[in-house]
Formats: sequence, structure tokens, C-alpha cells
Amino acid sequence: MGARTLGLHVRARSGPGILHQLTGVIARHQGDITSVEIVERSQVASRVYFEIELPATADALLSELRALEAALEVEVVPSFERVYGKRIIIVGGGAQVGQVAIGAISEADRHNIRGEHISVDTIPLVGEKPLAEAVRAVVRLPRAKALVLAGSLMGGEIEAAVREVRARGLLVISLNMAGSVPDAADLVVTDPVQAGVMAVMAVADTARFAVERLKRRVF
Amino acid sequence: MGARTLGLHVRARSGPGILHQLTGVIARHQGDITSVEIVERSQVASRVYFEIELPATADALLSELRALEAALEVEVVPSFERVYGKRIIIVGGGAQVGQVAIGAISEADRHNIRGEHISVDTIPLVGEKPLAEAVRAVVRLPRAKALVLAGSLMGGEIEAAVREVRARGLLVISLNMAGSVPDAADLVVTDPVQAGVMAVMAVADTARFAVERLKRRVF
Repeated sequence: MGARTLGLHVRARSGPGILHQLTGVIARHQGDITSVEIVERSQVASRVYFEIELPATADALLSELRALEAALEVEVVPSFERVYGKRIIIVGGGAQVGQVAIGAISEADRHNIRGEHISVDTIPLVGEKPLAEAVRAVVRLPRAKALVLAGSLMGGEIEAAVREVRARGLLVISLNMAGSVPDAADLVVTDPVQAGVMAVMAVADTARFAVERLKRRVF
Repeated sequence: MGARTLGLHVRARSGPGILHQLTGVIARHQGDITSVEIVERSQVASRVYFEIELPATADALLSELRALEAALEVEVVPSFERVYGKRIIIVGGGAQVGQVAIGAISEADRHNIRGEHISVDTIPLVGEKPLAEAVRAVVRLPRAKALVLAGSLMGGEIEAAVREVRARGLLVISLNMAGSVPDAADLVVTDPVQAGVMAVMAVADTARFAVERLKRRVF
């Protein structure tokens, strides 16, 4: 993200077409929207958050947005990239997801103290189809850099989903478990705490650890 | 979310104005965009994810989107609301964030098995200003329902941020700790595992637990 990335929080009237109006103003100022989220919606008003790369200062854009009849409030805020940073996603059974999270959170703490921004997100889930869906959805999550599969048995459609998301550039770490998912992962780790730690090390710029330079893929 | 909420994954050319074009087509079909995320950006192409409430079937919208010169690929996918659901956010020091996560993940597992969709997101952080920023940013995160502050000492600007986000409707649980943050929270819990469990119970439709009906606010 360049120095000119602007975080904008807009409260606007609700309804079809409002986002189209707001993005029209941003496009006219040559703003490249790098992130957008609709944070809250009610019958009367919505809150929308934008991150925008701007070629010039924000003043003209801000005043044109504020002049829109649909815009109730326009506020400059710090960007998510700066606050929450890279995301590690942990998916699987509650007992193991919790242990992987312990490792990942402790390790992220050590890197965040040195200036990194890494957050750890988890979802405990059961069943082949919900797990495969959650795996496929990770590549649609903003700022997601690595996925850890934490369970005792995963295969079938989950394995297919793992191969798909790896092909899209996501790093996938699997616990050593029954089923075909470990065969499809970048890295297989037996200790769940270590799996969490390694996931963070792999995405941290403050760490010297690169999955592609490892001589072993199973730990 | 109604039955007509549509998840759409669009791969489009990169650059200013593209989101404006896509949202224009959606607005012409009376689509109300309930969620939008820019998932990936490169020089040539970006991937954008929309959730849209539509008054009619999606066919006409899909074919008009596919006809756009800027749209490379348009795909219907399951919505985030359905896959990841409500979010609990845990912020603070690594040791305590990890313990709160253990409780929250185990409890979310029990509810998700019964049909809930709750995920648990964490960020280990140090320092008054970064923590206050992270607290304020929670109300900009989509689907965030409760925040747990996990630390040993929090006050000052963090307390002010807690009061702000509570005024915007977010449930805030604080560990029992030094500083003024516990005074500003909805609920104060001493055991970090229990704090995580209570956060999940408070947002789960499958639980019988309502913070406003509790006779005590400190546990």
C-alpha cells in the first residue's frame, strides 16, 4: 500500500444505487478502490468503508463526497491493512482449532511487537461440505495469507478445495491427520501449537522462514 | 438475509472506475448490495465479491454483468454470511488472547454443530494507541457482534474507544484487569476461557443467555 492510501468511512442513505453514486465520485477523482466493506445496514442508513489509492490529495474528493445528497457523514480513518494486517485462517474441529490458535496468536504477538501486523481468524466447523466451502471461501477473504486445517479426518471434497486454493496462491498447512488432505497441503505438522507458529512464521516479514526452502514437508 | 441473497464472485480488469461500472449494472437491476469485498488486486485483474439482495431471479443481472467488457468472469458462490457467520473479535496480549480464543472456539464449535455460524477472530497487539485503533476499527468489520478485551492493563484512550463502540451497539466484554477498561465494558470476566465462552453464548441464537438479563456484571 502506498503512502497515499486513504481510509474513508461514509455514512450514507440506504438503498439500491448508493454505492454506484459513491464509486462514481471516487472514479472521477482517479481513485483506485483497493478495499470496500459495507459495515452496517439499516432501513434508513448504511455505513461503508473504503480504502482508496489517490494520485492527489484527498481534499477535492472529500468535499465532492460530502456534497452528495445521499452522503450523511464522511470521515477519514486508519486503514484495515494498517490495523489488522495479514490474516491466518484456522478451520476445523474446536479442540484442535483452539490449540493451533494458541500457537499462532503467541507467535503473531512476538512479530507484531516488532512492527508486523498479523491477525488470527478461526472457524470451528463439522462436515465435509461446510469445511470444503469454508476452504474455498478463504481466497475471497481480504488479506488472508495462510490457511491451517486443524482436524483428525479430512478428505474428499475438502482435498479438492485445498488443491484449488493452493493453485490460487494460498499457503495451506495441514495437521498430520487421517484422510487425503495432508497429501494436498504445502506442509504437514503433527503438533497443533507448532502448526500455528509455523503458519505465522511463513507469512511474517519479521521471520526468517520460507516454506519453499524447507528440506522436509512433514514435521 | 433473505432467500434471494446472491453471492457473486467477479474477476474484472483492474483500474479506477471498474467498481463503478459493476455497481451500475447491479443498481439497474434493483440489486441492494449488502456486502462487497475486493479480494485480490494485480496490475491486470481484480477479484471482487458481492452479496446482493435481488427482487427477481439473477439471470438478467448475470448476463448483463458477463456482457461488460471489463468483466472477465462472473460466478455465483455461497455467501460469507452463510459460511463464516457472526464474528467474535478478541484483542489484547498474546497469552490472554490465546486463552480467550480457546474458550470461544470450543463454545462456537458446540453452537455451529447445532446450525449456528460463529467464527472467532483475534489480534495480539501491544500499546495504548494500536489497541484503541483496533477497538474503533471493530465497528467497521462486517458481521462483528462482540469484542473481548484480553489483557492485564488497559485504560486511557482504549477506555474512550470502548465507550464509542458500545454506543454504536457492539457488545464489549473485558477481562478483570488493571486500568479503566473494565468500568467501561458491558461485562467483566476474570477467567479468560469463560470470557470467550460467554462472548459466544451472548451472540448465539442457539444459546439462552442474554447480557441484559444478568443480575451481575462482574464474574
